Amino acid sequence: MKKALVLLSGGQDSTTCLFWAKANFDTIEAIGFDYGQRHKLELELAAQNAKEAGIPFYVTKVSMLTDIVPNALTSQTIDVEEVVGEGSAPNTLVEGRNMIFITYAGVYAKSKGINNLVMGVGQTDYSNYPDCRDEFIQSAKQTLSLALDYQMEIYTPLMWKSKAETWQLADELGVVDIIKNKTLTCYNGVIADGCGNCPACKLRNKGWQEYVNSKG
Amino acid sequence: MKKALVLLSGGQDSTTCLFWAKANFDTIEAIGFDYGQRHKLELELAAQNAKEAGIPFYVTKVSMLTDIVPNALTSQTIDVEEVVGEGSAPNTLVEGRNMIFITYAGVYAKSKGINNLVMGVGQTDYSNYPDCRDEFIQSAKQTLSLALDYQMEIYTPLMWKSKAETWQLADELGVVDIIKNKTLTCYNGVIADGCGNCPACKLRNKGWQEYVNSKG
Repeated sequence: MKKALVLLSGGQDSTTCLFWAKANFDTIEAIGFDYGQRHKLELELAAQNAKEAGIPFYVTKVSMLTDIVPNALTSQTIDVEEVVGEGSAPNTLVEGRNMIFITYAGVYAKSKGINNLVMGVGQTDYSNYPDCRDEFIQSAKQTLSLALDYQMEIYTPLMWKSKAETWQLADELGVVDIIKNKTLTCYNGVIADGCGNCPACKLRNKGWQEYVNSKG
Repeated sequence: MKKALVLLSGGQDSTTCLFWAKANFDTIEAIGFDYGQRHKLELELAAQNAKEAGIPFYVTKVSMLTDIVPNALTSQTIDVEEVVGEGSAPNTLVEGRNMIFITYAGVYAKSKGINNLVMGVGQTDYSNYPDCRDEFIQSAKQTLSLALDYQMEIYTPLMWKSKAETWQLADELGVVDIIKNKTLTCYNGVIADGCGNCPACKLRNKGWQEYVNSKG
């Protein structure tokens, strides 16, 4: 009986992973984090998608020290900027976020007898977020297993996929309509196709076009 | 200019580390975590000791999923038990605690341009807490550095010390009186020598006796 816990934000990537996990594990649950992100709609969509798929979804509040380290993703007063130089992180970076999420998810998973986490992070197209890289995930898996004295795996099915390939995966899983219409990726909080102008929308929509073109 | 951030709880070990860091770094700051621990007095003592030593002390609230994973350290209704079998963790274990603390401390340290964390954990005498072991700390250092894309060191001056040796270190640092009278280790919230009966008091007092005997 293979059980997995999916880290679900309500965006394109984690929602695709939710259905990937549903297809690849016997039982799945999902966990979401309320860390003061600008757009609560993202978590509401996550809850709705999980409910319709019959997957238990637990949401917990988490502090992100955002009073100490301001960023555009939790602040209402900082505008999202395009990445300026090669190698510099965007101002939507929430420092330490994935390490915090992984730790809480691990604690929750252990309490449920679950040994597998599933996350929508990836290092293709992902604009310099250090905590989305495979090297970080592999290290975090090791640290988490030691912290909890409990063997944990972390699956990242999108690690090496482009956005177009992520759309392709959704297609294979038969959930393109859900991903297209019931997820929020846009930094400006516009559901589905989004505002079209923020970096997240540009990436998502470019991927969609490539995927559509590849289908011919 | 070597700068360090000390993870300070207000107990014997972290307070000893505060003074160890003061003696070994040019500038130090301290961070504390309010995670719903039973005895707020511990953090108050931490604040007092930091203030008297002229060290900036920042306290942040942190969730520990204690609604999900109950334990005797944050619950008012669970009694602290002695460890039953070899290899089993005590019911004062707060799952994932040090991994969460290390992540927040790392985010805070990076925001201040600090590359060194100092923690009072150790694997001698430490009753099976998996996240006090050196193997965990070494792995966490690696994961944290990757998460933040920022080289971080974690110093654990008590890792291989017995409680008697920790008293000896306080003596060498000239702070035995502070550690003896102004720290809280007791699970029942009794300052200094404590209740004398809980596992933490027994360990602390046994170490004290050994240290006194070794001085002859």
